Amino acid sequence: MTKEMIFSALDMFSPSFLAQGIWKHPGDRSTDFNTMEYWLDYARLLERGLFDMIFMADTLGVYDIYGGSRDAAIRGGVQIPMNDPFMLVTAMASVTKNLGFGITGNLSFEPPYLFARRMSTLDHLTGGRVGWNIVTGILDSGAKAMGHDKMIPHDKRYDVADDYLTLMYKLWEGSWEDGAVVRDLEKGIYADPARVHAIDHQGEYFRSSGIHMCSPSPQRTPVLFQAGASDRGRQFAASNAEGVFVNGTSKESMARTVADIRKRAAALGRDPQDVKVLAGATVIVGRTEKEAQDKRQDYLRYASTEATLAHASGGMGVDLAKYPLDEPIRYEETDANRTLMEALTKRGDRTYTVRQVAEEMSLSGRNLLLVGDAQQVADELAAWKEATGVDGFNLARLTMPETLKDIVELLVPALQERGLYKRDYGQGTLREKLGGAARLPASHPAAGYRKGA
Amino acid sequence: MTKEMIFSALDMFSPSFLAQGIWKHPGDRSTDFNTMEYWLDYARLLERGLFDMIFMADTLGVYDIYGGSRDAAIRGGVQIPMNDPFMLVTAMASVTKNLGFGITGNLSFEPPYLFARRMSTLDHLTGGRVGWNIVTGILDSGAKAMGHDKMIPHDKRYDVADDYLTLMYKLWEGSWEDGAVVRDLEKGIYADPARVHAIDHQGEYFRSSGIHMCSPSPQRTPVLFQAGASDRGRQFAASNAEGVFVNGTSKESMARTVADIRKRAAALGRDPQDVKVLAGATVIVGRTEKEAQDKRQDYLRYASTEATLAHASGGMGVDLAKYPLDEPIRYEETDANRTLMEALTKRGDRTYTVRQVAEEMSLSGRNLLLVGDAQQVADELAAWKEATGVDGFNLARLTMPETLKDIVELLVPALQERGLYKRDYGQGTLREKLGGAARLPASHPAAGYRKGA
Repeated sequence: MTKEMIFSALDMFSPSFLAQGIWKHPGDRSTDFNTMEYWLDYARLLERGLFDMIFMADTLGVYDIYGGSRDAAIRGGVQIPMNDPFMLVTAMASVTKNLGFGITGNLSFEPPYLFARRMSTLDHLTGGRVGWNIVTGILDSGAKAMGHDKMIPHDKRYDVADDYLTLMYKLWEGSWEDGAVVRDLEKGIYADPARVHAIDHQGEYFRSSGIHMCSPSPQRTPVLFQAGASDRGRQFAASNAEGVFVNGTSKESMARTVADIRKRAAALGRDPQDVKVLAGATVIVGRTEKEAQDKRQDYLRYASTEATLAHASGGMGVDLAKYPLDEPIRYEETDANRTLMEALTKRGDRTYTVRQVAEEMSLSGRNLLLVGDAQQVADELAAWKEATGVDGFNLARLTMPETLKDIVELLVPALQERGLYKRDYGQGTLREKLGGAARLPASHPAAGYRKGA
Repeated sequence: MTKEMIFSALDMFSPSFLAQGIWKHPGDRSTDFNTMEYWLDYARLLERGLFDMIFMADTLGVYDIYGGSRDAAIRGGVQIPMNDPFMLVTAMASVTKNLGFGITGNLSFEPPYLFARRMSTLDHLTGGRVGWNIVTGILDSGAKAMGHDKMIPHDKRYDVADDYLTLMYKLWEGSWEDGAVVRDLEKGIYADPARVHAIDHQGEYFRSSGIHMCSPSPQRTPVLFQAGASDRGRQFAASNAEGVFVNGTSKESMARTVADIRKRAAALGRDPQDVKVLAGATVIVGRTEKEAQDKRQDYLRYASTEATLAHASGGMGVDLAKYPLDEPIRYEETDANRTLMEALTKRGDRTYTVRQVAEEMSLSGRNLLLVGDAQQVADELAAWKEATGVDGFNLARLTMPETLKDIVELLVPALQERGLYKRDYGQGTLREKLGGAARLPASHPAAGYRKGA
């Protein structure tokens, strides 16, 4: 683990992300999310701050658990509308040279052969700056929109994921050998057919026979990210992921999670440091502590209880509209309530009212919230990194561009002074900037599908 | 029909397109197709020439009919590798203001709900500059790569297409009313749930229940293009398409096709002028006729017979390797040979050898090839437009950037002098620039799915 922190900006292609209602803030530009300039400016700002990447979360479907209806989500603009985050990559890449792109792609819905081509294309056009956040989807409303009756059960989704990844590795790593593209002007040979191999994948869930449509891109397999928290999810991450997202507000709990993921990776023969862990965090940085606290109070004025609960209900699968707003929540030990309980542990082990939960989640969801001047926030981030073993942070915005501007202009210099943040971008692809080689190491399961010398 | 011609650049996201082997030409940059700069320069050049759009063809799969193998296609780089053309749109849009984008999307493979979101996203980010070239796929190799046994039969593909389009229209036109996004800062309402409608599509091929993920984009439905030549394909185009691509080398035949499409559109209650027709053409323009003819000879030196035949065999579904190269082709009146015959009619009704066919197709495929100085080519294009009733041309490159640079710097001014080409871009979306309103007219089937005032 290097001393320097990885910084990633965490967002969604939507008017809102984790802080519900913040779009009403007069300083927030995020309702311009449909425009090109908004995202070009975003990318330029991140590159100015030497961010390693922007990480685009995504959810297909709409939050319709709260009150048994989608109305609260639509009213509050709660991650709806939600555009296709893949469409941002080349635009943002066209105005940057080093910024990476971690984009969420749902393997329950994306046809694998087309998805493999899309990622290779992005890897080419960005010069190897692309990553894939592997998700399997959570919302039944998304599954129904896709023409399914509901989401497939959680554990089975990871069997689907294993099959999907195997097919991807065959296409990305095994179809075109490194020297396949010869571009021989004399003999008129663009590529050598003997070095381009058809795959023949007959999996339990996916089939594909043929060659990959794309020649080898700088990274071949994009940098793989994952955020699964369940046992099966962690095992999948330990096997495949190069970056894992964790969240929570307890250092002890996060340290246990990080250690568990690294231990599982090592047990699978991987270098535990090949799995970078990023903690979700929202930071409010001011020139002084008071300025930061004033900003927090200002942001809170725009928070929406209804929208926060619509989001939380959707994420938990529990209709929080069923609980009286101002009475302590009485939950039973059912599956659904266990998820709810996890959210509440943020406040310790007391019992809270729904309103208190909403207030607690209103600015940062279930992520860490840090407020202070640059030195204070730098102290906190350093302490979190030290105590938990995470490699960096996935930073969600409040208002745009203020939150990120404060990070770039105030927090980054403070971290640089301490030697905790790079002063220049490293060379090469996203994978190289994160500490690896351009291509996946031999210890990664993808390497087993390579062909040729 | 206005006097001014529509100009569209026709290309593929591949080292080769219609002129097989031209990538070996020392002046050709097209083997840089994997890089961002290649496409940004391409877009800037087209906008300098006031091109209405770039039209990206696409084929999933590889040409493997010729000699019963994919080897010739790989060797010649015959439309393989082939990247995902959708990934180019926002990059090219970020360096242009007016250029439109007609992108090929295969509805046999793209999940409709995701595809609807992708197109709406692009329409937002480009400010309404996006079009969709509707295809159903032709290559069995593509179907097998997608996990199917083979392509579904041709006529059934259009039944699938009808169902797909209906679902698209419901999502694009019927889910969000125009006034649904209110952004009421006082009341904290982003969108009005009463004006966002769930669709419930239970078609023969596709199902989807839910709201569209995107708020209304400038054009809602992207400009719809189609190139179906069959009876069923023309009927589909007459009903849905706003732009139709035709090719051929006979004015009489093309004029009949154009008239037929317009007649069918009128019979369906549409204004026949709402269907723009573009003829595929390759033009070689020189400062003098001799310079143009010299360029043609120069290009021909790089043409590859094997690659041309691999391409032609794949497109026709006939293995031309089975015919001796230098004997007249003896064909029988079977389905497959009827397609072959169509290709040969380019040379009239004599019988030709396979080598002669390859030579004839080597620079422009089955498209029109025009060679001359700017005045001669302008004459020819004007004559074709006059005789056939087409609205403009879909112009394929030979070498990049020379072909397009000659068009922009020599041909465009010649056409402008005659009043046959715009001197400035028109206002608004791609649909408006092509002569319509921002949204589809009431006579289009999509309009029937609109909700609200």
